[in-house]
Amino acid sequence: MTTSSPTVTTGAFPASRKIHVSGSRHKDIRVPMREIELHPSAGEQPLTVYDTSGPYSDPAVETDIARGLTPLRRNWILARGDVEPYEGRSVQPADNGFVSADRLTPAFPDLRRPLRAKAGRAVTQLAYARAGIVTPEMEFVAIRETQRRAAASQETRDGEDFGASIPGDITPEFVRDEIARGRAIIPANVNHPESEPMIIGRNFLVKVNANMGTSAVTSSMAEEVDKMVWAIRWGADTVMDLSTGRNIHNTREWIVRNSPVPIGTVPIYQALEKVGGVAEELTWEVYRDTLIEQAEQGVDYFTIHAGLRLHMVPLTVDRVTGIVSRGGSIIAKWCLHHHRESFLYERFEEICDICRAYDVSFSLGDGLRPGSIADANDAAQFAELETLGELTKIAWAKDCQVMIEGPGHVAMHKIKENMDKQIECCDEAPFYTLGPLTTDIAPGYDHITSGIGAAMIGWFGCAMLCYVTPKEHLGLPDRDDVKTGVITYKIAAHAADLAKGLPGAQARDDALSRARFEFRWEDQFNLSLDPDTARDFHDQTLPKDAHKVAHFCSMCGPRFCSMKISHDIRAEAHKDGMAEMARKYRERGELYVPLQATEG
Amino acid sequence: MTTSSPTVTTGAFPASRKIHVSGSRHKDIRVPMREIELHPSAGEQPLTVYDTSGPYSDPAVETDIARGLTPLRRNWILARGDVEPYEGRSVQPADNGFVSADRLTPAFPDLRRPLRAKAGRAVTQLAYARAGIVTPEMEFVAIRETQRRAAASQETRDGEDFGASIPGDITPEFVRDEIARGRAIIPANVNHPESEPMIIGRNFLVKVNANMGTSAVTSSMAEEVDKMVWAIRWGADTVMDLSTGRNIHNTREWIVRNSPVPIGTVPIYQALEKVGGVAEELTWEVYRDTLIEQAEQGVDYFTIHAGLRLHMVPLTVDRVTGIVSRGGSIIAKWCLHHHRESFLYERFEEICDICRAYDVSFSLGDGLRPGSIADANDAAQFAELETLGELTKIAWAKDCQVMIEGPGHVAMHKIKENMDKQIECCDEAPFYTLGPLTTDIAPGYDHITSGIGAAMIGWFGCAMLCYVTPKEHLGLPDRDDVKTGVITYKIAAHAADLAKGLPGAQARDDALSRARFEFRWEDQFNLSLDPDTARDFHDQTLPKDAHKVAHFCSMCGPRFCSMKISHDIRAEAHKDGMAEMARKYRERGELYVPLQATEG
Repeated sequence: MTTSSPTVTTGAFPASRKIHVSGSRHKDIRVPMREIELHPSAGEQPLTVYDTSGPYSDPAVETDIARGLTPLRRNWILARGDVEPYEGRSVQPADNGFVSADRLTPAFPDLRRPLRAKAGRAVTQLAYARAGIVTPEMEFVAIRETQRRAAASQETRDGEDFGASIPGDITPEFVRDEIARGRAIIPANVNHPESEPMIIGRNFLVKVNANMGTSAVTSSMAEEVDKMVWAIRWGADTVMDLSTGRNIHNTREWIVRNSPVPIGTVPIYQALEKVGGVAEELTWEVYRDTLIEQAEQGVDYFTIHAGLRLHMVPLTVDRVTGIVSRGGSIIAKWCLHHHRESFLYERFEEICDICRAYDVSFSLGDGLRPGSIADANDAAQFAELETLGELTKIAWAKDCQVMIEGPGHVAMHKIKENMDKQIECCDEAPFYTLGPLTTDIAPGYDHITSGIGAAMIGWFGCAMLCYVTPKEHLGLPDRDDVKTGVITYKIAAHAADLAKGLPGAQARDDALSRARFEFRWEDQFNLSLDPDTARDFHDQTLPKDAHKVAHFCSMCGPRFCSMKISHDIRAEAHKDGMAEMARKYRERGELYVPLQATEG
Repeated sequence: MTTSSPTVTTGAFPASRKIHVSGSRHKDIRVPMREIELHPSAGEQPLTVYDTSGPYSDPAVETDIARGLTPLRRNWILARGDVEPYEGRSVQPADNGFVSADRLTPAFPDLRRPLRAKAGRAVTQLAYARAGIVTPEMEFVAIRETQRRAAASQETRDGEDFGASIPGDITPEFVRDEIARGRAIIPANVNHPESEPMIIGRNFLVKVNANMGTSAVTSSMAEEVDKMVWAIRWGADTVMDLSTGRNIHNTREWIVRNSPVPIGTVPIYQALEKVGGVAEELTWEVYRDTLIEQAEQGVDYFTIHAGLRLHMVPLTVDRVTGIVSRGGSIIAKWCLHHHRESFLYERFEEICDICRAYDVSFSLGDGLRPGSIADANDAAQFAELETLGELTKIAWAKDCQVMIEGPGHVAMHKIKENMDKQIECCDEAPFYTLGPLTTDIAPGYDHITSGIGAAMIGWFGCAMLCYVTPKEHLGLPDRDDVKTGVITYKIAAHAADLAKGLPGAQARDDALSRARFEFRWEDQFNLSLDPDTARDFHDQTLPKDAHKVAHFCSMCGPRFCSMKISHDIRAEAHKDGMAEMARKYRERGELYVPLQATEG
């Protein structure tokens, strides 16, 4: 590969270094984290933060997207002895949308033979968990979630977790147990050995997904790979490739080979391209072939709208916004045309067999999610959710990992009902929602309308939040939009972690607030979710380096700086002895009070 | 005035016209609203929306900021016969921070003599309300809140209002009653007759305040007037002028004379300037003089940190971020230095007498609000809140209107406790919070960290949300930041209105969603909070005019447009007869189901 190899963003974060924490059960595990160094005056240890950015932020690693990332899970997968390489399906012109040769995205140069389960074997993390096996992936995520903090079992928990089962200490055994009971998943296709394992479940850190993908109208492979790298740099835990149009197959290969995070897709999009975009002409055979094609490439989770049943379609007809899920509308149209249940529903067990052979996780799609405030929590939406609960049990019986997709557009007072009903119907299988958007009136700002709902549903128990960018409803997100969407959703996820009372979640807030109070400006920038923007905003008014140690900022100027005054107060108070002071002041304070409540 | 007259943004919103609704009790009332016209294909009436933008968005009015706005309330005020003009205080060099003549912001050209209550009279809306008088201001806000919708008493209410008393129909008598019991205020200084009355209370639309102001470090009068006009254009219901440094007096005069929304201030800022910035040297006399100075100019509400008492200061010493309120820290330092209660607390009844003579509303400041997640809901914060409750009763006894300021930085699970405790301590006096910010880790994005908390506390009963801009903690907001902050908070306020179930709140969401579903792109832009940004984002990928009527957008392209497919489904469904279809499909659906839950 030469000219096609796009440049992606690399380099360390400011004052940060990549560290790797080793496993104890599995010695070859190296869990990446980021350490943020603080100014010596802080007298604090570096802060360790969760790191989704992969080797791209590690100056010690030279990446080349034409080679792909190191397949760090390869040996773990092979060591289990339950998969075998095989020839795999050959790429067909339909896979890339019959694109002409001159417009074909080049194939990824170094294609491996795919792996799949040996006959009769289930190679899913769920199967291993049920068998009592703690896989390297499980130990990896246990270390990753813990972020080197000490066990918190002695801490006073501060939070409201609405009946979650958050432990003080995240052990590999706890991870295994959560997966075994279906309450968490590790999306980890055996053909995506480049991925750094991560876990999705209500008793873990809330995760964020970023969508991207080419469409028939715009964007190219190079842009998409760069967007993926960019999205994980800012904190995306998984990426969904929602490409439509041409070159879908080859673009996806480039993305998967270079992605350290799980990749999700909606296979019906590609299947539809293969039948020329005519929904009615979709067949089980085309769809099945697409599932295998994508499973062989290493897609980690599939959105499958199998819960949308024929009798639910009429329930959407009087909605304000009908069906707004692309996949859902395609399936609904197929069902209506053929007057029968979809092949997704009828063939669900066969789909499970495919997923089980590669460990592709299910993301059971909510094809009938509301597309407007008016349609939230209606009969169509909840009927489908109930069906998703039935399908969850079927997938579990097949040893498949499952999460459930959720809305959409939902006013605040209806959000908790979604979470509660999902937990009830789906027996605590992880919930994965798009937003929800809490009002319809702000196109251009739907990262915010939805960030509000995302934070709330994350608090209530949602395990992963699918980001929404400022371009939602209006156009395809560019690089800036992707970053804004990811940061907004990291905020929502972190606000949820705090409110749930996840042990250790507040450490970064506290470190940043101490830096703020002590006027360690550089530390404040470096500890933030987006150091570049924080520094840039500060420098717009006070650019001089001297101001980085100034005991004030441009908001108030030196005379009005409350923090500066607080330091004076603290100094004075400590001089006099605090406890004595409080006692004395309270006593004297009473004497000073000439006022009485004189309601009249 | 010639050169000093800055240009402000004027002009109508797209497809919009300013209308005025007349009063029935008071015939000279003309309540401004905005009508958004829809495409003829919609077959819908224009949508009426609440309009804070004043005459600046009315092409029929020629504004000139050197003349100021028409004093529309002047006759109402004079007709009550309880105020008299007087000479007023003369402007002193200290009022403008002893600025040198060459740097002095010019005085506003057309200064009126101030009004104040005749001896012994209370000229507050609260006094009138208690006397059973429905003032023009009260009728004005009743019409304004109703937005021309029909009474909603017959509607099925959809929302959770946590014990609020939201009526189906907002009558002038209801407004009077809410004010009389202290549950709402109309900030309306007799010396700010240019203001279009608005109401703040939990049973009305949630309001938004935008802060602005010069500081010693940066910004000028011209910028500030423009920012005010800009902020109200995007929806700010009130504006706080938080200027420090020089030219405070003259800048404020320009702002008030040109503001159709209530103006709030924190008088201690100017008082501190008058004593050279040395907190300990503040005196009651300087402060009192400042209150009168600002009351004569027409400031509609004062933030007064009278609830911060001496014995509370030691409670802040072990906080992560001490005292972060500027006013609070000034008062705390004063208290500590003098070892006595502040003159704000000791002289509170005298302050009430001043406010009562001009109808300046109280915004009782939360000088001890938390500045970090770690400090939320602590003893210092709640001790002050309890004192604010006592002061509320004293102010009410003096016929003064009161609202209460609230935090700050608060994780989601602690927000409701703030609202509940405020209602309990302050007997439902309107709550007015800054955010709250739900995490500390995202400087540069604190409009979002706080927009989440603002939406939630608005839902829980908070009456007004003080915006936070992206520059919070980092620098002074510029025009773009002001707009982003206001729009974010309009989203939060509206999301809260929806969740509370305010009658009619969903009309705009529904109209926009219908436009979206019917591919009326122009209507979608025009109905949104920010038509310019929505249109711009759309046009970045699909700029051609033809695409404004296209039945798809760049997100999915024509083939994958769920809305387009939904229309096909709807057409087909209606052809077959919906009810019959649903019945038939449900029956047949059962036959198709080969799957059973086979948990194992």
